Amino acid sequence: MEDTRTEAEAALDPAALAAALVRDYVADNVEALNRLPPETAAAVLAHLPRERAIDILDQADLDAAPDIVRLFPPNLAASLLTGMAADRAADVFRQIDEPARSELLSRLEPESSAAIRRLLVYPPNTAGSIMTTEFVSVPSSWTVGQALAHIRKVERTRETIYAIYVLDPSSRRLLRAVTLRRLIAAEPEAPILSAARPQEPITVTGLVDREEVARLFTKYDLLAVPVVDAAGHVLGIVTVDDVIDAILEESSEDVQKFGGMAAIEEPYLQIGFGYMIRKRAGWLCALFISEMLTASAMQSFQSELEKALVLSLFIPLIMSSGGNSGSQATSLLIRSLALRELHLGDWWRVAIRELPTGIVLGAILGVIGIARIALWQNLGFYDYGEHWVLVAITVGIALVGIVTFGSMAGSMLPFVLQRIGFDPASASAPFVATLVDVTGLVIYFGVATVILRGTLL
Amino acid sequence: MEDTRTEAEAALDPAALAAALVRDYVADNVEALNRLPPETAAAVLAHLPRERAIDILDQADLDAAPDIVRLFPPNLAASLLTGMAADRAADVFRQIDEPARSELLSRLEPESSAAIRRLLVYPPNTAGSIMTTEFVSVPSSWTVGQALAHIRKVERTRETIYAIYVLDPSSRRLLRAVTLRRLIAAEPEAPILSAARPQEPITVTGLVDREEVARLFTKYDLLAVPVVDAAGHVLGIVTVDDVIDAILEESSEDVQKFGGMAAIEEPYLQIGFGYMIRKRAGWLCALFISEMLTASAMQSFQSELEKALVLSLFIPLIMSSGGNSGSQATSLLIRSLALRELHLGDWWRVAIRELPTGIVLGAILGVIGIARIALWQNLGFYDYGEHWVLVAITVGIALVGIVTFGSMAGSMLPFVLQRIGFDPASASAPFVATLVDVTGLVIYFGVATVILRGTLL
Repeated sequence: MEDTRTEAEAALDPAALAAALVRDYVADNVEALNRLPPETAAAVLAHLPRERAIDILDQADLDAAPDIVRLFPPNLAASLLTGMAADRAADVFRQIDEPARSELLSRLEPESSAAIRRLLVYPPNTAGSIMTTEFVSVPSSWTVGQALAHIRKVERTRETIYAIYVLDPSSRRLLRAVTLRRLIAAEPEAPILSAARPQEPITVTGLVDREEVARLFTKYDLLAVPVVDAAGHVLGIVTVDDVIDAILEESSEDVQKFGGMAAIEEPYLQIGFGYMIRKRAGWLCALFISEMLTASAMQSFQSELEKALVLSLFIPLIMSSGGNSGSQATSLLIRSLALRELHLGDWWRVAIRELPTGIVLGAILGVIGIARIALWQNLGFYDYGEHWVLVAITVGIALVGIVTFGSMAGSMLPFVLQRIGFDPASASAPFVATLVDVTGLVIYFGVATVILRGTLL
Repeated sequence: MEDTRTEAEAALDPAALAAALVRDYVADNVEALNRLPPETAAAVLAHLPRERAIDILDQADLDAAPDIVRLFPPNLAASLLTGMAADRAADVFRQIDEPARSELLSRLEPESSAAIRRLLVYPPNTAGSIMTTEFVSVPSSWTVGQALAHIRKVERTRETIYAIYVLDPSSRRLLRAVTLRRLIAAEPEAPILSAARPQEPITVTGLVDREEVARLFTKYDLLAVPVVDAAGHVLGIVTVDDVIDAILEESSEDVQKFGGMAAIEEPYLQIGFGYMIRKRAGWLCALFISEMLTASAMQSFQSELEKALVLSLFIPLIMSSGGNSGSQATSLLIRSLALRELHLGDWWRVAIRELPTGIVLGAILGVIGIARIALWQNLGFYDYGEHWVLVAITVGIALVGIVTFGSMAGSMLPFVLQRIGFDPASASAPFVATLVDVTGLVIYFGVATVILRGTLL
């Protein structure tokens, strides 16, 4: 490793750094290592006691874990990966390309590499991809005391011991879940099943989306949920810390998607330039091309504009109001749908609320708009021509129509997307604004044609 | 209560409903009760065994809890509230107005009402407002075995027993935190401090924002964090289930704020009409009034528009591109700032990334825009006049300028807001679009003046 270190890095002595780290929390070690280049981080980790190095590699926040692992001498890499939680090791392997992945996997102890291989088959963002295979299970024939003695023995190698799964002794199918809490409170000689919840345990299959898993955790206040196969055998468990990470990632994705871009998981400063352009250009081009319809709409109103150029003054104002009201409605609805407060069948309940909401909001803006034109005209700031009253009325009525349409379109779009099988969170603010813009122009010029006929038009 | 029930509700026999509920999970009971009017839900709860009724009231998802509690006969209300977790009971009391709040509080057992009163002093969204006072603490002079025996005894009255706090026997200050896991694995006759983590425990004060608490949970993979006073006495603990609820609420708020509205906590269908109008009208009016600057900008370019009306055709297209690129940049940055991936001092790192990003994205849109105009002109769809090439070049160059400005403004806005003491998540898509719109018009007409001088202008 020596040859890859620059002089400046060599000045930081990895052994001294490692000695300083042991006294801190593992999470703080991760933050410190994230600030170092992967080469130095790998050297520091190599100087740490094996247990601490494994604890650090087990943290999902360690940014350069795949790079660090590949910088280790192969034997050290294999030893540390074998010690890591299988779900976290699988996460690291997911970010290592072939052939290095298979090469490294083959160096691990057979049991570890088999466990990791089983996790690698699950697509990202599924329960299977975030589960750990290191959980506690006991046969239903045991007593509470036997189970506790077993837990004491295996504790060090399990990700959590707060949920214990009781299996049928012959079929090994999941019968019940017991919390460590119940076990502690129960009599040692009582049968384990007497300490279990009377209900069937809450379970998921490996392909369930992690968002759905998060929903179960919040609904049932779980600390872990077992992942089972079709026959009811426990394949692994998803623990609460992985679920929190998933919830945070999903909500970042929701905000990014709402901002009108493809979701990016990496921290901002680690996103490659080309990657960022690709993630942003796609939606930006799609929106731009849709928005070109506004140019077509404007072209068709060219003769009206020639006769009444004053109408052009308010186009940006009116269009943005439609987009803003739509964006509000969408932001309200996508979260309600995501949190399952609303279901697809509730669309009409929402529609009959958004209609009056849009009319009232549009009327408020309309009054402000009319006041603005009257004020400017009467204070002599600008001359909107002899028919300024009619122009003001046109703007006011158009605002009611556009804000109402914006609220309706913005609130219905997430339902439409969900209905046709898309994530309702794909309904971004720019998407809604684009949808509303062309209609906004049509409403504006439509109102103008009626109000200004015989005067300006 | 009988007189408040309608005939249709009376048809549902609360006793029969209650009998059916006991067999299900508490979380499912909550869902069932949420579908009933509060009067019926209260009647059903009154028929349930006390322990189950308390478990149900302890769920934060029970929507009408404050109404239900007030519908109970006073003695039943006092008995159930006394049994509830103090943090959840305080939550319910927060939603009951005076004088009913004090009246009901005075009926509780003195110990419970004192605990609830202590929680009620903390402002919403702070660690103190979501903490529970039912935690396990033991003096540092005890052995592991003594602590386990104590835990067995108090288990039923504690919200969690997975984190145990070790206090100085005389000052009762917090010394260390022990997990139940370590306790189980340790020898019974070992001193409790030998099972504790060697580090000082992670703590918060009661006024720390719940978002900051959530960050500590994810960083240190905690199941609970103690809330301490200035002297180091434990006031209560925040548990992981409350933190997950907080994370979900915060992320809903972030999406709503990003959509350009004040945050609303209630499920959509429970929001009152007047309340919703107030929450949405504020930002909508503020944006509308700011956006009026576009009308002023348009007024000042009136003579250019008269000479070259063709320029008006592309105003909606150009303005929306600036808003969209700004909205993308903002959505990327507010999450990075919220998750502390970026700090205030990183603004210049972001600026030097967004500048080239904006130029490349603008150039991509510019090329598409020029192609669109050339295509329409040459296919005879529309005649942009003899100087159509210059018009196309104007649109292309203006797009580069506007998208670059949009990316820069959108990425810097969250930093500016954080710098002046606001939540960076207040930087909504409509806010950015409004910010970019006026500048967009100035850039567009500025480019036009240079390119079209001597021909159209």
